[in-house]
Amino acid sequence: MKNRAKNIFNTIEKNLDAIVIKNATHPFIDDNFFYITGLEKGIFEGSLLIVCPDGTLDLLVSELEAESASKAKANIHIYKDKEDIKSIIKTSFSSLKNVGVNYTGLSHRDFCKLKDVFPKSKFTDVSEELLKTRLVKDEMEIELIKKACMISDKVMEKIPDMLHEGMYEYEIAAEIDYLMQKLGADKPAFETISSFSKNTAEPHYSHGSTRLKKGDFALFDFGACFRKYNSDMTRTFVFGNADKKQKEMYETVLGAQKVGFDSIKPGLQTSDVHTAVSSYIDNTKFKGRFIHSTGHALGLAVHEGVGFGSDSHVDLQENMVFTVEPGVYIPGFGGVRIEDDILVKKDGMELLTTSSRALLEI
Amino acid sequence: MKNRAKNIFNTIEKNLDAIVIKNATHPFIDDNFFYITGLEKGIFEGSLLIVCPDGTLDLLVSELEAESASKAKANIHIYKDKEDIKSIIKTSFSSLKNVGVNYTGLSHRDFCKLKDVFPKSKFTDVSEELLKTRLVKDEMEIELIKKACMISDKVMEKIPDMLHEGMYEYEIAAEIDYLMQKLGADKPAFETISSFSKNTAEPHYSHGSTRLKKGDFALFDFGACFRKYNSDMTRTFVFGNADKKQKEMYETVLGAQKVGFDSIKPGLQTSDVHTAVSSYIDNTKFKGRFIHSTGHALGLAVHEGVGFGSDSHVDLQENMVFTVEPGVYIPGFGGVRIEDDILVKKDGMELLTTSSRALLEI
Repeated sequence: MKNRAKNIFNTIEKNLDAIVIKNATHPFIDDNFFYITGLEKGIFEGSLLIVCPDGTLDLLVSELEAESASKAKANIHIYKDKEDIKSIIKTSFSSLKNVGVNYTGLSHRDFCKLKDVFPKSKFTDVSEELLKTRLVKDEMEIELIKKACMISDKVMEKIPDMLHEGMYEYEIAAEIDYLMQKLGADKPAFETISSFSKNTAEPHYSHGSTRLKKGDFALFDFGACFRKYNSDMTRTFVFGNADKKQKEMYETVLGAQKVGFDSIKPGLQTSDVHTAVSSYIDNTKFKGRFIHSTGHALGLAVHEGVGFGSDSHVDLQENMVFTVEPGVYIPGFGGVRIEDDILVKKDGMELLTTSSRALLEI
Repeated sequence: MKNRAKNIFNTIEKNLDAIVIKNATHPFIDDNFFYITGLEKGIFEGSLLIVCPDGTLDLLVSELEAESASKAKANIHIYKDKEDIKSIIKTSFSSLKNVGVNYTGLSHRDFCKLKDVFPKSKFTDVSEELLKTRLVKDEMEIELIKKACMISDKVMEKIPDMLHEGMYEYEIAAEIDYLMQKLGADKPAFETISSFSKNTAEPHYSHGSTRLKKGDFALFDFGACFRKYNSDMTRTFVFGNADKKQKEMYETVLGAQKVGFDSIKPGLQTSDVHTAVSSYIDNTKFKGRFIHSTGHALGLAVHEGVGFGSDSHVDLQENMVFTVEPGVYIPGFGGVRIEDDILVKKDGMELLTTSSRALLEI
């Protein structure tokens, strides 16, 4: 993983002696810890990673993580307690003057603590640089994301056969998560959304005990986490025959997604994609019903900071991975969202999730 | 949830005009947001909660969360973008002078941003007070934790029947998670640990593709998340007949857990429990093989800051909930951990997880 470390330093203008990544307690764990070390297992609560510009890594971990940490190409320091951390840093790292830290991945409390244990250091925020480096995926990352996408595709294809009248939203969520794990996912990428009927109008709905009935929209938004990398996809089905309004909503979202796909290529900006998609929807009868951004970067994190939003101005580059997920939501009636994961290519994009996007009446 | 808000202010010596809770992007979401609002659903990325000493709540949420937020007894402010957040705060909350924030639940970046949007305010860390308040559970919380415990108990009882020779660790993890969700869990409380053979010696092991064989230790550490509240339990089985060493390890851990249970009552300190348990183990042939703390507070978070550790000096009080989880780990051979959840009572404790703790040879 030396290359990843070097790539990060290449994006930083200022001369830094090191970057320090500090994990707190779960879930306040910095993904960059795993990005830079390449570690795929372990929890690493409280662990500290010190990255030098030449790619050398030093890991401070508790005895609990010693075995997991040994898989990294790093100098491993085992600490027993908090005092031990201080003394290891004093002995080995007190000469670091200019230190980069990730302001978005670090609690304010840990920031204050770092100030204490590195009393002579000057801290610089490197969150933007970490984000920027991680947006462009390397070969190994793309392979893992593709595997995660393959798992969620396989599960999505099985959903229509699972649905029957009267079943609860949470039952399908349980089946989806189970199938993903049976297919090799470490865990669901996030809490699976399974919503029926008018609940589909809430993009962030948490599944409950609504039962499926004829004529309902049934929306499933989930992803697989495979060796720490994520997929994220959504399909909306109609259970029974779709009525006119449902069909119009679906066709609008499908058309909007196509517009999104067509607007993705290196040279354009993330905001361009959102502008194209939201203008398309706003030129239909569903004007104003698309209430979120068009997508987000995807990788070790499900939301990697940058998205296709009106106030996001990042140049698209080859090997970036994003979701494209337009939606139309009518409170009290229902919503449609279609979400796929894409890889930016030299001349356009490649679809990483490939489940059918045609309206399915079950 | 007015009482929860008032309870928090009662623990704060300084006069504060408000407490501000700010969520970042998943997973950097502050549990206190849900504790104070009582909300059970929604993600609330980027949302802001302003809590006044009289218990009045103001919620700033995006349109995405408007529906979920409406379930809280709070004044709801819907924002469209970041500029909107600033203008809502300027209009309605700029008079707040002394503001409490949670240094452990807030990223350093968000801390800096709060400084920007509340330019006239003085910030005080209230993380200790939030923690302290949350340690003592109210009736509704205990009920939810009991429900979460009941789910994991039911699943644990089914595990012996699931095990057969040659199966993979990840297969059992998938079954465990599936059963929990089928029994009504929102999701697993954390990534389920399923480990066989010598992998059981790693307390933070992530399940992989090791196959179960005769004579193996098989360790399962998991919990259910039920309406945001968690359980957390561990059992270690022997697949086949236990040999002498396995039996000795098991009996030692079981004895240690009993010592832990006996040392829990109001008036004693968290460190006392750990001292009792670790001394017990250190007086056996497994001296030095217990490499973590004896347990941790449990609730909305799986690890609620305070634990049974040598450097944790919190007075035990009625209605606190903890795990009690001694273990003995021998690298290259295997490990045993037995973990249960307990409620501190007036005269001792109540077991919330009740699965059999006797050594089970399957």
